[in-house]
Amino acid sequence: MKLLSGGICAVRGVKAYGIKEGKKGLAIIVGKGNAAGVFTQNKIKAAPVIVMNERLPCVMNAIIANSGCANAFTGERGLEDAKRMSQLVADELDVNSKSVGVASTGIIGHHVDMDWIERHVKDVMNGLTSKSGGSEAAARAIMTTDTILKQVAVEVDGVRIGGIAKGSGMIEPNMNTVLVFIYTDADFSYDVLYKCLRTAVDDSFNMVVVDGDASTNDMVLLTATGKKHISDHHFQEGLNFVCTELAKMIARDGEGATKFIEVDISGAISKDDARKAAKAVVRSPLVKTAVYGESPNWGRIVSAIGRSGADVEADKITLELSDGANVVTLVKEGSIVEGVLDQARALMVRDIIVIKADLGLGNGGARAWGCDLTCDYVRINAKYMT
Amino acid sequence: MKLLSGGICAVRGVKAYGIKEGKKGLAIIVGKGNAAGVFTQNKIKAAPVIVMNERLPCVMNAIIANSGCANAFTGERGLEDAKRMSQLVADELDVNSKSVGVASTGIIGHHVDMDWIERHVKDVMNGLTSKSGGSEAAARAIMTTDTILKQVAVEVDGVRIGGIAKGSGMIEPNMNTVLVFIYTDADFSYDVLYKCLRTAVDDSFNMVVVDGDASTNDMVLLTATGKKHISDHHFQEGLNFVCTELAKMIARDGEGATKFIEVDISGAISKDDARKAAKAVVRSPLVKTAVYGESPNWGRIVSAIGRSGADVEADKITLELSDGANVVTLVKEGSIVEGVLDQARALMVRDIIVIKADLGLGNGGARAWGCDLTCDYVRINAKYMT
Repeated sequence: MKLLSGGICAVRGVKAYGIKEGKKGLAIIVGKGNAAGVFTQNKIKAAPVIVMNERLPCVMNAIIANSGCANAFTGERGLEDAKRMSQLVADELDVNSKSVGVASTGIIGHHVDMDWIERHVKDVMNGLTSKSGGSEAAARAIMTTDTILKQVAVEVDGVRIGGIAKGSGMIEPNMNTVLVFIYTDADFSYDVLYKCLRTAVDDSFNMVVVDGDASTNDMVLLTATGKKHISDHHFQEGLNFVCTELAKMIARDGEGATKFIEVDISGAISKDDARKAAKAVVRSPLVKTAVYGESPNWGRIVSAIGRSGADVEADKITLELSDGANVVTLVKEGSIVEGVLDQARALMVRDIIVIKADLGLGNGGARAWGCDLTCDYVRINAKYMT
Repeated sequence: MKLLSGGICAVRGVKAYGIKEGKKGLAIIVGKGNAAGVFTQNKIKAAPVIVMNERLPCVMNAIIANSGCANAFTGERGLEDAKRMSQLVADELDVNSKSVGVASTGIIGHHVDMDWIERHVKDVMNGLTSKSGGSEAAARAIMTTDTILKQVAVEVDGVRIGGIAKGSGMIEPNMNTVLVFIYTDADFSYDVLYKCLRTAVDDSFNMVVVDGDASTNDMVLLTATGKKHISDHHFQEGLNFVCTELAKMIARDGEGATKFIEVDISGAISKDDARKAAKAVVRSPLVKTAVYGESPNWGRIVSAIGRSGADVEADKITLELSDGANVVTLVKEGSIVEGVLDQARALMVRDIIVIKADLGLGNGGARAWGCDLTCDYVRINAKYMT
């Protein structure tokens, strides 16, 4: 596997562009191929999610995405606006509007400013490029409270996979919305694409917790432009890498975050148990505030594992803290290791905190990613208004 | 139902006392009767929880509880310490140590300072009193980050029910530990007591969220000294009241809290769905930070309901905000009510915020309680060390 620059534009046949004007942004991506999607499990679904759920799987020609307004809780008019957005791009490309993906991120309960979008569609279309600047412009256009532009691309067996993402714990700052658009020049049916995407999403975006709130708008779309052949297995490997890298970028860019947290659970009775335990730790406000305070408060970690729903036995747990390089063992098979708290404290000044727990019960493993909980998180989210 | 002063000492046959010395506290309650208990569901259980799980139901003569150390993740020695604590009181009373309840709250992974406890048991025993000061002293002795002393007592059909509680989102500040000791002079078998307690706890303490972290030490004990007769039904009513009042005190005293939140869900398909929805709202960091910021950011509320797991339809939801007196309807059967945000904003400066959602689908209802998420919460929990 080889890392490439250029994000989605590293994939042959993909053009992209986007603009940002104040809090509003508009991105368009053009690239034809079989497409599969994975969507929010929130029962209150934004209009673009409802529309895309109906359209996929399909051959998709393009994606239009706006930031600043989630187009959620907007009733019939919201659905019409979402369809109108894809129609605008369809008209430019002279394709069926149902073959154009649509996504939104921003504040809930407000209608999309369609005038603004109509006015800017042509500008964005005119900017479309297969150069790496196109991917960057599109990724920037969907950013809200994001502070880092998120894109990645790889080549596996001659096949390219590139993705852009947004997500920071909130938006406008109303929702923890994750939008991800991935392209590949591999040749796959809908079914295989969906299966690969589902697998990759479960171990990447579904293992990120910024604040535990799930959005009405989460959407991951994967389009395969279908020019190259590759084994499912190798493709899955590349896709997992792309999704995991983007997921880690989202965790690292969590609102108000000062530190990136990775939780690595092994020795669980099942993978499902390992996932539960990893997510419980990374979601725990007590663990998150301890990391912020650079305190190796491991009692909070074992307590979070204990209430995660996973099978746990106190006398089997081994617990390590790491900054990615140095490792300190705090608990070994249930016994507290004495005299190591100063070493642990020294680790915790670093930006990356890895929490590793071996439950000592089986072979189940999982990783989850998140960030610390800071006063800035509270400030960012306290004072904004609907 | 009549409100009484005096907490647990309002119940005839109950004596209590407690002392506090720095972060350490010791409370003893004496009162003989059938006893039932409800404990943390965390799989990492503190030593006193393991011991009490084995002992109950039983005829209980007394309770000894310490604050400052949770006696959790302390292995065999922890179990011995917990048993030794009850033995100390048993020796004073000349009863079997298995008839003495034991509870702890404080930091995880440390051993109880048994020397300190042994030195102070006699002082506390000597202070035991049936006057209201006894209940207060015991309630104060188990406080940690609590800022409000929590006790309540009522009389129903001549029967008295009194309780003391501690809980504030953390302790020492390591755990969100809830300890509750309730006494009544009613006459009931273990089975009825347990059934009544389980019912009351489900609709009270189990509906409080301060930070979503569940402790290794949570314990609610109910002892019936058995002198008076009352119907199950009336007793349940009184017990529900006592548990709900204590639960609300815990929510109101959440760490760093500036506002008390009540979430009242009606119209759910089932009670279980209503409970899920109510707890999802009261647990949501986005709702909690919005309340802190005095922002009627209702999109976050419907999103939390949407991801709660409860059945929800966007076009059936009615949503109201209230300060306990004035009410503003934000969404009526799925339609956004225009022009009310200024009224809603005005409500939100108050200390009590009531979020009322009618899901419009059935007859299921539930209430949950919590508090806002503030920078003080982050500060309180960031800088302490194991």
